[in-house]
Amino acid sequence: MRILNDLRKIFVQYLNENLFTQSPKELYEPNNYFLNIGGKRMRPVLVLLGSHLYNKRYEDVLPAAMAIEYFHNFSLIHDDIMDAAPLRRGQATIHEKYNSNTAILSGDALLVYAYKFLSLIPQENLKTILEIFSDTAIEVCEGQQLDMNFETQASVTEDEYIWMIRQKTSVVLAAAIKIGSLIGGASNEDAESLFQYALNLGIAFQIQDDILDCYGNIELVGKQPGGDIIQNKKTLLLIRALNHCQDAGDKTLIDIMNKKYSNSSEKIKDVLNIYEKYQIKNSVEQSKQSYIDKAIAHLDAILLEKEKKDILFQLTEYLVKRDY
Amino acid sequence: MRILNDLRKIFVQYLNENLFTQSPKELYEPNNYFLNIGGKRMRPVLVLLGSHLYNKRYEDVLPAAMAIEYFHNFSLIHDDIMDAAPLRRGQATIHEKYNSNTAILSGDALLVYAYKFLSLIPQENLKTILEIFSDTAIEVCEGQQLDMNFETQASVTEDEYIWMIRQKTSVVLAAAIKIGSLIGGASNEDAESLFQYALNLGIAFQIQDDILDCYGNIELVGKQPGGDIIQNKKTLLLIRALNHCQDAGDKTLIDIMNKKYSNSSEKIKDVLNIYEKYQIKNSVEQSKQSYIDKAIAHLDAILLEKEKKDILFQLTEYLVKRDY
Repeated sequence: MRILNDLRKIFVQYLNENLFTQSPKELYEPNNYFLNIGGKRMRPVLVLLGSHLYNKRYEDVLPAAMAIEYFHNFSLIHDDIMDAAPLRRGQATIHEKYNSNTAILSGDALLVYAYKFLSLIPQENLKTILEIFSDTAIEVCEGQQLDMNFETQASVTEDEYIWMIRQKTSVVLAAAIKIGSLIGGASNEDAESLFQYALNLGIAFQIQDDILDCYGNIELVGKQPGGDIIQNKKTLLLIRALNHCQDAGDKTLIDIMNKKYSNSSEKIKDVLNIYEKYQIKNSVEQSKQSYIDKAIAHLDAILLEKEKKDILFQLTEYLVKRDY
Repeated sequence: MRILNDLRKIFVQYLNENLFTQSPKELYEPNNYFLNIGGKRMRPVLVLLGSHLYNKRYEDVLPAAMAIEYFHNFSLIHDDIMDAAPLRRGQATIHEKYNSNTAILSGDALLVYAYKFLSLIPQENLKTILEIFSDTAIEVCEGQQLDMNFETQASVTEDEYIWMIRQKTSVVLAAAIKIGSLIGGASNEDAESLFQYALNLGIAFQIQDDILDCYGNIELVGKQPGGDIIQNKKTLLLIRALNHCQDAGDKTLIDIMNKKYSNSSEKIKDVLNIYEKYQIKNSVEQSKQSYIDKAIAHLDAILLEKEKKDILFQLTEYLVKRDY
């Protein structure tokens, strides 16, 4: 999408102009490293897009985009410690490349800098957006806690799972477009509709991520499929399959999860057979579609010319109709 | 001091009325535990005092006091992980009582809540105080990084050490009274003088802490003296003694630091002998006094009636003239 690419370029230029040059370098270099690893910059692009819909100058909204991107990277840095993840986007995580203390402290500094950039937005928006930003950040912490709880929790319901991905992932996307639109001059009603649009889109996006981890094309997705299956990760697919098995008195899936496999591709094959038996892929794709439908329904209420709304329809396509 | 006790009671009541009741409890309970361990609540009391000097209602300033106290506790929780400290004020640290992941994430949430409370202060002060708060938080992160750097750094100068304690400890005290006074209605000049007063007082306070760790009365200080000596911690006393030894071509202190002692009280005795030889205690007490003098000099410029200024003189006595 042309407009998304343009907005991404504008943001990346701003990010690069604002890389950390302060000392002590032991504190700041790790953040520059991590910010440079990249990613799609989806969240700051949503901030800029929110503002673009209402024709605001980018200068007014770039600090808020930066705040969201810093916050997102802070949360990844700390999550990676908690998850003991060695890699992020194919590169060493901060705690792996440096050490845990560096990852804790550099992450902390990045969160504070997020707020420092936030204080640069136009003063008339500051109180409202500070509140949205903090409430969102709290929800992300709560989502991460739920995600960690799920690892040791005997059973997780679909509702609990959807709530977790809402808190951990979707609220930041939703807050991003809402904050951008408010700075851009949107009415509170439009901003709230955009929030709900992105919130549901975010849930669909995360469900799609679960699907891609099982069924993704390695060339397109960039990673070997089946990682979640190997780890018994409680994704929507696994939770739904466990429910079907329980209803059918079928213990096969539980046995597969508890079995020690010497060959992990055997485990993937066995789980995918169960998914096939209960038509999990199809049913989870329907769930994904229902969140896309909810997202699009929220666009109806927004007062924007067709040209601007079309951007949002294209964004929907771009985010949740990827090939796999 | 009567007024400080009154302010402390007002703050502690507000803190207790705002303990976390949200879920997930795994995220919030550790913070309630840590906030309940207590401490002198010096920082929030300074916020209230800053406002009290200018007769502001406490309701307007309590959220800022809470933000400072939350921030302070967040930084302790994360520092304790980095320092692998098992105890804080005689109680188990969060990473010790729960685990490191809990300490990271609960600490993160506490920092975000600090900003959430900050957004509750009167809107006319918000932008200025948000900037002061974030700049202070960044300095604290930098101070903690410098402190960690010092552990592996071959030599640390006195200037580097004073800068580190300024960043890690003093700026929060200084920002606390400045923020309180600004909400209270102080002029920018008064607020800046109060900042400089508390900044120098904070450095004196930290130097006193170094002295107490060597020479404190266990009954008054509440801990066995000599902890810093056992760990070769680069305090102002050790740095100054190392300088004297170097000037005199005296290698005894370096040898003591490198020697493995089976009995740590022997090591303490040996180091104190060196301190005695070079009159370190006396000379460091003079340095402490010079920061107290600088602090008091900043009070001259402040436009306050005598009665209010007297509170600040009493505060000085209270903070940095403790018996030992």
